[in-house]
Amino acid sequence: MSELFWPGEARAGALFDDDALLAAMTRVETAWLRVLHDAGVARDADPDVLAALPVQTPDDVEAGGNPVIGFVAGLRNRLPDPTARWLHKGLTSQDVLDTALMLCARDAADQILRDARRQVLAARDLAVAHRGSVQAGRTLTQHAVPTTFGLTAANWLTGILDAVEDLVRVPLPMQLGGAAGTLAGVAAVVGDGGAALELADALAAEVGLAESVPWHTSRRPVTRVGDALVACVDACGRIANDVLVRSRPEIGELAEPTPGGSSTMPHKHNPVLSVLIRRAAISAPFPAAALHAAAAAAVDERPDGAWHAEWDPLRTLARHTVVAMSQTADLLEGLVVDVDRMLATASAARADLLAEQHALANEGRDLAGYLGATDLLIAAAVQRADRFVKGDA
Amino acid sequence: MSELFWPGEARAGALFDDDALLAAMTRVETAWLRVLHDAGVARDADPDVLAALPVQTPDDVEAGGNPVIGFVAGLRNRLPDPTARWLHKGLTSQDVLDTALMLCARDAADQILRDARRQVLAARDLAVAHRGSVQAGRTLTQHAVPTTFGLTAANWLTGILDAVEDLVRVPLPMQLGGAAGTLAGVAAVVGDGGAALELADALAAEVGLAESVPWHTSRRPVTRVGDALVACVDACGRIANDVLVRSRPEIGELAEPTPGGSSTMPHKHNPVLSVLIRRAAISAPFPAAALHAAAAAAVDERPDGAWHAEWDPLRTLARHTVVAMSQTADLLEGLVVDVDRMLATASAARADLLAEQHALANEGRDLAGYLGATDLLIAAAVQRADRFVKGDA
Amino acid sequence: MSELFWPGEARAGALFDDDALLAAMTRVETAWLRVLHDAGVARDADPDVLAALPVQTPDDVEAGGNPVIGFVAGLRNRLPDPTARWLHKGLTSQDVLDTALMLCARDAADQILRDARRQVLAARDLAVAHRGSVQAGRTLTQHAVPTTFGLTAANWLTGILDAVEDLVRVPLPMQLGGAAGTLAGVAAVVGDGGAALELADALAAEVGLAESVPWHTSRRPVTRVGDALVACVDACGRIANDVLVRSRPEIGELAEPTPGGSSTMPHKHNPVLSVLIRRAAISAPFPAAALHAAAAAAVDERPDGAWHAEWDPLRTLARHTVVAMSQTADLLEGLVVDVDRMLATASAARADLLAEQHALANEGRDLAGYLGATDLLIAAAVQRADRFVKGDA
Amino acid sequence: MSELFWPGEARAGALFDDDALLAAMTRVETAWLRVLHDAGVARDADPDVLAALPVQTPDDVEAGGNPVIGFVAGLRNRLPDPTARWLHKGLTSQDVLDTALMLCARDAADQILRDARRQVLAARDLAVAHRGSVQAGRTLTQHAVPTTFGLTAANWLTGILDAVEDLVRVPLPMQLGGAAGTLAGVAAVVGDGGAALELADALAAEVGLAESVPWHTSRRPVTRVGDALVACVDACGRIANDVLVRSRPEIGELAEPTPGGSSTMPHKHNPVLSVLIRRAAISAPFPAAALHAAAAAAVDERPDGAWHAEWDPLRTLARHTVVAMSQTADLLEGLVVDVDRMLATASAARADLLAEQHALANEGRDLAGYLGATDLLIAAAVQRADRFVKGDA
Repeated sequence: MSELFWPGEARAGALFDDDALLAAMTRVETAWLRVLHDAGVARDADPDVLAALPVQTPDDVEAGGNPVIGFVAGLRNRLPDPTARWLHKGLTSQDVLDTALMLCARDAADQILRDARRQVLAARDLAVAHRGSVQAGRTLTQHAVPTTFGLTAANWLTGILDAVEDLVRVPLPMQLGGAAGTLAGVAAVVGDGGAALELADALAAEVGLAESVPWHTSRRPVTRVGDALVACVDACGRIANDVLVRSRPEIGELAEPTPGGSSTMPHKHNPVLSVLIRRAAISAPFPAAALHAAAAAAVDERPDGAWHAEWDPLRTLARHTVVAMSQTADLLEGLVVDVDRMLATASAARADLLAEQHALANEGRDLAGYLGATDLLIAAAVQRADRFVKGDA
Repeated sequence: MSELFWPGEARAGALFDDDALLAAMTRVETAWLRVLHDAGVARDADPDVLAALPVQTPDDVEAGGNPVIGFVAGLRNRLPDPTARWLHKGLTSQDVLDTALMLCARDAADQILRDARRQVLAARDLAVAHRGSVQAGRTLTQHAVPTTFGLTAANWLTGILDAVEDLVRVPLPMQLGGAAGTLAGVAAVVGDGGAALELADALAAEVGLAESVPWHTSRRPVTRVGDALVACVDACGRIANDVLVRSRPEIGELAEPTPGGSSTMPHKHNPVLSVLIRRAAISAPFPAAALHAAAAAAVDERPDGAWHAEWDPLRTLARHTVVAMSQTADLLEGLVVDVDRMLATASAARADLLAEQHALANEGRDLAGYLGATDLLIAAAVQRADRFVKGDA
Repeated sequence: MSELFWPGEARAGALFDDDALLAAMTRVETAWLRVLHDAGVARDADPDVLAALPVQTPDDVEAGGNPVIGFVAGLRNRLPDPTARWLHKGLTSQDVLDTALMLCARDAADQILRDARRQVLAARDLAVAHRGSVQAGRTLTQHAVPTTFGLTAANWLTGILDAVEDLVRVPLPMQLGGAAGTLAGVAAVVGDGGAALELADALAAEVGLAESVPWHTSRRPVTRVGDALVACVDACGRIANDVLVRSRPEIGELAEPTPGGSSTMPHKHNPVLSVLIRRAAISAPFPAAALHAAAAAAVDERPDGAWHAEWDPLRTLARHTVVAMSQTADLLEGLVVDVDRMLATASAARADLLAEQHALANEGRDLAGYLGATDLLIAAAVQRADRFVKGDA
Repeated sequence: MSELFWPGEARAGALFDDDALLAAMTRVETAWLRVLHDAGVARDADPDVLAALPVQTPDDVEAGGNPVIGFVAGLRNRLPDPTARWLHKGLTSQDVLDTALMLCARDAADQILRDARRQVLAARDLAVAHRGSVQAGRTLTQHAVPTTFGLTAANWLTGILDAVEDLVRVPLPMQLGGAAGTLAGVAAVVGDGGAALELADALAAEVGLAESVPWHTSRRPVTRVGDALVACVDACGRIANDVLVRSRPEIGELAEPTPGGSSTMPHKHNPVLSVLIRRAAISAPFPAAALHAAAAAAVDERPDGAWHAEWDPLRTLARHTVVAMSQTADLLEGLVVDVDRMLATASAARADLLAEQHALANEGRDLAGYLGATDLLIAAAVQRADRFVKGDA
C-alpha cells in the first residue's frame, strides 16, 4: 500500500488497511459478545464496552502466526471482568479473521459498486451520444468493417456489467467453527450443537454477512471474491487498452480528460489513467491466482500456511480493483472523443472497410449503410445499464 | 495431452481434442446453415450435406492464425454449390471458434458433473457412515480438539458442492458478431440488424447455448468457465491433501483403494490417486489465471493475440479438471478408513484434545462428549448433497 | 500439443512429445546399463540390445503415477536375461524421468539457440541498415523524442541476447539418487557409496549432462530452465508488440512478410506472426510460475505431487518457447520496413519531438541532430551480436 | 506491508518502503548531479546540497503516473539555483526509478545473503551433527529406504545454495537512457553521444551498480531479480514443508524452537515459523510471474503500463523473500531434532525400509548398513557450504 509503488492507491483509502482490519475484528468480537449476551449466555458481559474500546495494534503478531491471538489478548487486558472473560468465548482465530476479512471485502465491494455505477452511467451516455459516430472497426490491429463509437462504448458497458453483476452475487459468509470446525467450544458454552448453530446464524445477522457452515478449509468463499475482483479489473483493462490505442497521436480518436506530463518533455500528454489501469490489468491475475493456490493447498481441520497465504493477496487485489474501478470511472466520465477524426480515418479506409460488404455482393453504398445491428446492440446495452442503475439505486 | 506427461489424462478421453474441436466447429457451421435455411434466406443450402461431411483437419492453420480459416476453406472445397456458397455466410472466425469452444466446455462440464455426482454420493456415504468415528482434529498440523471422520467427509462434500454448483450456474453463450461485432454481414444477408439478432438467437437455440450479444472482446464468459473449473480442482486438491497426510504410515487413518507400486521397492503402497490429484491442484491456478490475463489484454473489436492465448489454457484446464474430478471420485468411492487407528490416535492424545474443554471449565468427560455440532453439520451437508443429487438426476 | 489450439505448434516438431520422452528414457536406461557394464559390474549385460529396442508406450501409466514404472516393466519383458536383470538396477523412477526431461530440455534449447541465432543475425542487419532511419520515439504511447529504427532493432537485439545468453548458462544436470536420494541401491551393487558417486558422474558423461548430487527435492534445475525459457518468450513478445503497434494502418511503419488473411474480408493483412508471438508472451509466465509452485511444494525425500506437477508445464513452456522463437526469427528475417512513413510521421511531429531539445536550450535544428547516442548504442549491440554469433557458431 | 496481513513482515524493516525508495531516488539524482559536476558540465551545481535535503514525499504522484515527476519538482522547489537548474538534467523518470529500484533490490539482496549465511551455517551444522542419525526415507508420503537426518539437512543446504548463488550472480544495472532511450538530452548537455555514454558509466560507478545500455523496454534485469528471489523462497518452502510434516505429533521427529500458541487451546505448539514460510512459498510464484507478464508486455520506447506493473510485485516479492529467509534462518538455528524418535520409527519400519535391499539380494543386515552415499553427499554439501561462507565473508 503505497502511492509511490502504486500511483492512485490513495483512491482505496482505508479499505483493508490495518486499522480497517482491526476495526472489523473488533466488530466481530463485539457482535459475538452481543450474540452470547442476547442468547442469555453471557448476560453479565457488556458488548458496548468492547465496542467503545479504541482500536489497538496487537504486539508480536508473528509469534502467534496471525493477528487475532495478540489482538484478543490486548482486548482482554483492557476489558473489565466479566466481559473480559466472555470475550472470544468459543471462537478460534480463524473465525474472527475470516469474518473480518469478509467485512473488509464487503466494504471494498461497496466502493467498487459505487464506481461501477459511475462507469455504467458514463459508458451508457457515450453509447447513446455516439450511436451515429462512425469509426473503423479494428481486428487483429487492422481495419475490418465500419462500426460506431457508440458500439465500442456499449461493449465496454457489457464488460463492466458482466463483471460487476457477478461481484454482486458473490456471497460473503461469516465464519464460525471454533478450534477445529466442530463448534465444540460454543456448544459447551450454550449447551448443545443445535444452540451453537443458532448462535452462528445470529452472528451472521449481527454482522450482516451470509450464514454458513464452517469453511476453515473450504475456501471457495475467498476464491469467489478473488475471481469476481479480477474480472472487474479485466473489464477495466479492456477499456484502457482501447483508450491507449486510440489516443496514440497517429490515431487520435480518443484522449484522456487530464493527461499526465513528463519530467522532461513539456508537450507530453500521457494517457496516465489508462496506463495505470492497464498496469492493474497486467497484475491482477496473479494475486487472484494466489488465492486459488491457497485454496488448493488447504488441509486438515485448519491449514498449515495456505490460510495465511490468502490475506495479503486478497488485500492487494481488493485495493487494486478499487483503484482501477475508480480510475476507469474518471476515464469514462471525462473521455474526449474526436468524432471528426474517427470519421476521417474511416472514410479514408472506406475501400477496405467495405470490402466484406462487396464480397457479400451487397449494395450498401457507404460506411453508415454497413453498420449491421450496431444501434440495436447499443440499445440492448443501454437497457441493461438502466436496469443495473435502477436496481443498484 | 499425454498420458506420459499427465498420468490419468486418458480419463478425459476426446474432450477438447482436435477431433472434438473440429466436430464442434462443424456443428456450429451446420447450425448456422440451418438457421439461414430455416429463416428462408439460404433456402437452397443443404445443412445435412454439411453435417454428413467427415471431419477434416485444416491445412496451414498458422497462416490464418486460427483454425477456422483453413477449416472453412476445406469444407467449401468439399461442398457442392449452392451450399458451399452459403457456408459461413456472415460469420467471422471468432464466432465459430468461440461457439465451438463453448460446446467443448459444455461436454467437459457434463463429464465433470457426472463425476461430481459420484463424489457427492461417496462423500455423503462416508459422512453418514462415520458420523461416530472419532478422530483427532488437526490444525496447523497439531492436534486441536476431537472431531469425527464423518465431519471431514461432510467438509469435503461442502467443498465439492461449492465448486460444482458454481460450475452449473456458469452461462455458456454462443458467439455471433461477424467481422467486427456489428453483425453487418448477417444483416446484409437477412435484410436488417433486427433480423440478424433474431438469427443469432436462433443459432443459440440450435446449438443449445445461451443467447448473447457479441463478446469478442468481453471475455467474462471464458474467465467464468476457467474460474469454475479451477475451483473444482481446488476442492479435489483439498481432499487429496487430507488423504496424503492421513495415509502416511505414521498416521495410517486412510488408505487408497489401489495404491501404486514402485519401480524398485516391492512393499511400496503409494497413494497415487491423491498424488495425481494434488499435482492438478498445484497446477490448475496457472492456466485459469492465463485466461484472466488474456481477458485483460483484449483490445479493439477483436484482439491481437489475447484471444489466441485462451485456447490452449482453456483446453488444458478443462481436461485436467475432468481428470482430477474422475480421480477424486475413484478415491472417495474406494477410500479405506481405519476407524480403530483414528480412535487409538485420538485416545492417546486425549489430554491435548480436551485441553480446550478444560479451559472452558466444561464437564465433558470424554472425546465423544466434546464433538459440538458435528452431527448437525454432517446432517446439513448430507441434506445439501441429497438436494444436489436429486436436482442433478 | 495441437496445431488447432496453438497455431504454429508444428514448429516444435517432436520436441518433448511422447516418443521423444520415451526415446530419452531409453537413452538414460541404456546409458546406465553401459555405465554398469563398463564399470565391470554388469559385465554380462548388453546395452546395445537395449538401445536397439523399438520404443514402446508403457501400459497403465496412471497406476504407477509416472511413466517410468510401466516403461521399465515393458523393457524388461522384451529384454533377454541377464540384460533384463541389470536394467534400471539401483535407479528410481525419478532418476530416469528427471534425466530424460533434461535431455528433452537440451534438445529444445538447441533449437531455441538455432532460432536465436537467426533472430540475432536478422536484428543485427536491421540495426545496421536502419541506423539512419529516423522515426518518432514513443513513450506511454505518445511521441517523445526522435530515435532511429536502427536503435529499435538494437534494443530488440539486447532483449534477445539477454534472454538467450542466460539460457545458454543454465546447467542441465543428470539425476541419480535411487529410491530416496541416498544411492543405496547403486552402492549395494557396486560396493560402496564412493563407487556409486563415480558411476553417477559416469552417467552424466554418458548422457552429456552436468554432474550433480541428487536433486529429487531441490528443484532449482527445473525452475532455472523455466525462468530462462519464459525470458526468451518475454523478449519475443516485446518485439511482436512493437510490430503490432507499428503495423497498424494509421502508423504503417512496419509490416509482416506474409500477413494472414481473413475468413470474410479479402483485403485483410493480419500480422499473424506477431499475433501468435504475443499470444505466447501473454501465456508463458503461467507455466513458468507453475514450476516454481511445484518446486516450493517439494517435501520428504521425493514429493507427493509437486514433482508430477512439473512435467506438463515444462513441456508446454518449452514447446511454446520454441514456437515463439521460430516465429520471431521469421518475423525479423522478413520484416518490411517503411522508412518513408517513419520519416513522414516524425517530420510531421517535429515540434513535439524536439520539445525536449528546446527545453534544454539546445541548438540542434532537425530531428537527425537530436539522436543522442543512437549510433553508438547500435554499434554496441552489433558488437555483442557478433560475439554471440561467433561463440555460438 | 503490514504485520497484520503478513506476520513477520517487520523482519523486512525499511527495505523497499516509501522512505527507502525516496532515499534511493535522491541518491540517484545526487549521483547524477555529481557526475555532471565532475565531468565539468555542471560545475556550478552542488550535489552536497541535494544530498543533504531531507526526503520529502511527492504530491500527486498519480497525476504523473510515477513518483519521479512530482519528486523532482519537489526537489527543484527546495534547491537553490544553479543546482536546481541542473537537477535531473537529461534524465527521464524511468532512469531514476529503475536505478532506485535496483538500489533497493541490492539492499534486499544484502539482507537475504546475511540470512542465507545464517541458514548455511545452521544447516551445515545439522548435516554434520546428524550424519549418523538414521531416519526413514519418505517418498510419495510412504516409507522408502533408510536415510539420515544429516542428508536431509545436506539437501536443504543444496537448495539454499542453489538459490542464493544464483541471486549473487544477478547483475543489477543502473538505468540511463533519457526520454526515449537515446541519451539525446545528456548528449545535448555534454556535447555528443560518446560523452553521454561515458557519463552513464560514471553514474554506474557512482551508485555502485552494473554498467548497462538503456533497458527501458528490455526487462530481463527485473525478471532476473524476480526469478532469483522466488527461487530463494522455493528453497525455504521446501525446508518448511519437511518441518511441518515431521513436527506432526504422529511423527514428532522435528520441532520448532519457539512454537506458537493458540487463542483457545493452551497445549498447542504450532510450528508457526514453518507455517509462515510455507505461506510465502505458496504465494511467491505469483508476484515473480507478474514481473514476466510485465516484461512481455513492453512496447515502444517506454511502455504504457507494463513498466508501472513491476514496482509493486517487485517490492512485495523482495520483502516476502527477506522475511522468509530470515524466518528460515531462525528455524534452522533453533530446530529441535529428536533422533530417538527418528530411530524408533525407522526401526519399527525396518522391514519396509530394507525391502529394496532384499530385492537387490544384498546382505546388509541393518538400517545403518543400507545408507549408500549419504556420508559422502553430506561431505560434499558441507564443502560447498564452507566455500560459500568463506567467499561470502
